[in-house]
Amino acid sequence: MQLTKYTDLALRAAMRLAVADGRELLTTKEIAEAMRVPYTHTAKAIAHLRHLGVVEARRGRGGGLALTEQGRRSRVGELIRTLEGDRESVTCEGANPCPLAGGCRLRHALREAQQAYYASLDRFTIQDLVASPTGPVLLSLAGPHI
Amino acid sequence: MQLTKYTDLALRAAMRLAVADGRELLTTKEIAEAMRVPYTHTAKAIAHLRHLGVVEARRGRGGGLALTEQGRRSRVGELIRTLEGDRESVTCEGANPCPLAGGCRLRHALREAQQAYYASLDRFTIQDLVASPTGPVLLSLAGPHI
Repeated sequence: MQLTKYTDLALRAAMRLAVADGRELLTTKEIAEAMRVPYTHTAKAIAHLRHLGVVEARRGRGGGLALTEQGRRSRVGELIRTLEGDRESVTCEGANPCPLAGGCRLRHALREAQQAYYASLDRFTIQDLVASPTGPVLLSLAGPHI
Repeated sequence: MQLTKYTDLALRAAMRLAVADGRELLTTKEIAEAMRVPYTHTAKAIAHLRHLGVVEARRGRGGGLALTEQGRRSRVGELIRTLEGDRESVTCEGANPCPLAGGCRLRHALREAQQAYYASLDRFTIQDLVASPTGPVLLSLAGPHI
């Protein structure tokens, strides 16, 4: 099963800000370039993370984006669940609903598996994800300013 | 995270054959109609399941598709892993690889979560999935012949 590219990007942006550790404030453009992803996608993910209270924008001279304390302590599973909109692994409803949708043991088993997936990820915070070697690699990306 | 529609369809086709229990042999067309999915998609999934030894085609008058004994006992997690091609939850490599791919704690955490997802599903066999209420619902679909 796959995460959306959007969720993946949002997580990596949060990780990049975690390793900056609030000492270095970044712009959306810098994050996009470091991650080698389009600016518009990054801007959308950052806006979402700000809305969730994971990221804050500090104003003024030398301002920029930083992870909040809440963001630093965010559980990875919980954050992914929110970013993905808590979708099911399969699409049982919608325009062409599955005839089994109402009483399906597969659907139930997939829901339980999804809980196990998130529970496994909830062992980690965003801060945990930027321990070595990930943090140093993130710091090395895209030149001295990022 | 999401399963591909292909995997979802293949699982449901296997479930439909499990409930037929070898007493009733089905055609690909009948399965497609019961599941309300395109014939060509169903044919592709059935071919894959036959290749895996999960489904067999019995020839001759009154022939058709049936689940094999191996198919009946297949662990759901293992079957999904095979159908999905054991892909990772995110695409780290490829044409535009993530700069972190080599030393990424997120990737590692996602791999572990994927293991937990499959382990949860491995508690069930295909046969388990067609216990009531799912089996009777499957039998009721698309008229008396399916």
